[in-house]
Amino acid sequence: KTITALADLEGKILKITKTGPSNLRNLGIKRAVLNIERGILKVTENFEGQTVSCFIALAAVEEEYREKKEEIKKALFKIPELSKILKGKLTIGSDQLAALKAGTDKKDGVILIAGTGAVCHGWWKGEEAKVSGWGWLNDEGSGFWVGQKAFQAIFKALDGRGKKTKISEEVFKQFNVKNKEELMAKVYGFTDSPEDNFVKNVSLMSIAVDEAAKRGDKRAREIFTEAAKELAKSAVLVIEKLSIEKEEFPLIFVGKMFESNIVFKEVKKGIKKVAPHIELIR
Amino acid sequence: KTITALADLEGKILKITKTGPSNLRNLGIKRAVLNIERGILKVTENFEGQTVSCFIALAAVEEEYREKKEEIKKALFKIPELSKILKGKLTIGSDQLAALKAGTDKKDGVILIAGTGAVCHGWWKGEEAKVSGWGWLNDEGSGFWVGQKAFQAIFKALDGRGKKTKISEEVFKQFNVKNKEELMAKVYGFTDSPEDNFVKNVSLMSIAVDEAAKRGDKRAREIFTEAAKELAKSAVLVIEKLSIEKEEFPLIFVGKMFESNIVFKEVKKGIKKVAPHIELIR
Repeated sequence: KTITALADLEGKILKITKTGPSNLRNLGIKRAVLNIERGILKVTENFEGQTVSCFIALAAVEEEYREKKEEIKKALFKIPELSKILKGKLTIGSDQLAALKAGTDKKDGVILIAGTGAVCHGWWKGEEAKVSGWGWLNDEGSGFWVGQKAFQAIFKALDGRGKKTKISEEVFKQFNVKNKEELMAKVYGFTDSPEDNFVKNVSLMSIAVDEAAKRGDKRAREIFTEAAKELAKSAVLVIEKLSIEKEEFPLIFVGKMFESNIVFKEVKKGIKKVAPHIELIR
Repeated sequence: KTITALADLEGKILKITKTGPSNLRNLGIKRAVLNIERGILKVTENFEGQTVSCFIALAAVEEEYREKKEEIKKALFKIPELSKILKGKLTIGSDQLAALKAGTDKKDGVILIAGTGAVCHGWWKGEEAKVSGWGWLNDEGSGFWVGQKAFQAIFKALDGRGKKTKISEEVFKQFNVKNKEELMAKVYGFTDSPEDNFVKNVSLMSIAVDEAAKRGDKRAREIFTEAAKELAKSAVLVIEKLSIEKEEFPLIFVGKMFESNIVFKEVKKGIKKVAPHIELIR
């Protein structure tokens, strides 16, 4: 999804809208720009004032799309309705930096994101360090990562290659399917946008894993504990790269994965061991 | 890819053609049908005779597309040029059964496929058993599975989360990219067909893993050994499900993964331990 907010010069938010996804990695520039366009038009609809500055925070833009910022800008300015609105300053930047600013007023800190993808990014006195965040095929500890493990666990259990797990039951319930064929059709279901099918559907399975874990399912708990260890590892590495083990700094947790207490507790434990003075912001 | 062959009534192959992919799971029915159509038209071009029977062997058709066979048939018959050619009998069946028939004249046997995906399927005196083959998100030991592990190993090494590995070098060489940003753009590169980008590109990375393994890279050898163990496990399970441990039967290996000697030797060892009398056909 793409969240677009209109704020006044004091920073007061006047309006917030939600449009389709704009992840460059999953959609490509053309489709992403379309949803950004929709967001800006929607948020400025009936707005009588003048816009002076626009910041677009995008996933993957500081990774493999760094060289494409100008192309994205041009694509946005090409849209007549939009170029009228975007007369002011237009900046394209990282969703990670935006998340830090959303979580703290402090200049420096570390942000650990675990939603569909996962990344840890830290800023300290002009230095910057980033670990993980290489897309849904990697991103150890992310929702997709957990969902893929869950999907594998389900079929291993059905095949007799792995132990029975309550994850199957929970996933079947979640997707409202009766058998494995229906589950597969649901997960792989082909549409033109990968974001609409497997990336989203696989990530959603992490919710069923949480349910199964709450019911005491062993495999579900193992997957979540492993995810938490991977997330803690990337945060610890960022902290070590910035040499801020002994500093006081905010660590901001963003993303659905931290709604699971198993994950949050385990990640916290792993990080606190290395950097005891951090201020945790969830 | 889709291979289409035209044979006479004695089974002699008159012509073979190759068209784009037709994996239902990765492309959906519409796109798959298009490439099947192209294959049939191409192979019967300038053919003066009459077709009497057509067998279409498709991936995923006996899994989540079992109920869609009629829909596929209808879509094919709707194409005027095709309905003329398909006057005779048209059967849609499993690519796994076709692969068994291609490998042996015996009625019963086991086929272990490890290409982009992986599956083990066995037939014995009217009984049938299948393990794995649940698509590229699972399919432990497949080319995609190996490629994803390789991709993860590359970024773990670059992040400092994992040990250095020659896989990085080999993959960079293979895809002709200079840095991780270019690699990501290559792997995730968005096109309308998932088959054209990540499923294919990730699977291709298994070739680089083979190269790195040959150069003695530890992580590459670990990934391949783990893949082989997973493949052997699914074959052993099929054999156990059919209770043919003590029988003589052909076991047919299909797919690029078995071109690696590390994989082939390890799989053979794992299976021979359980079923010593099998006849291996690679």
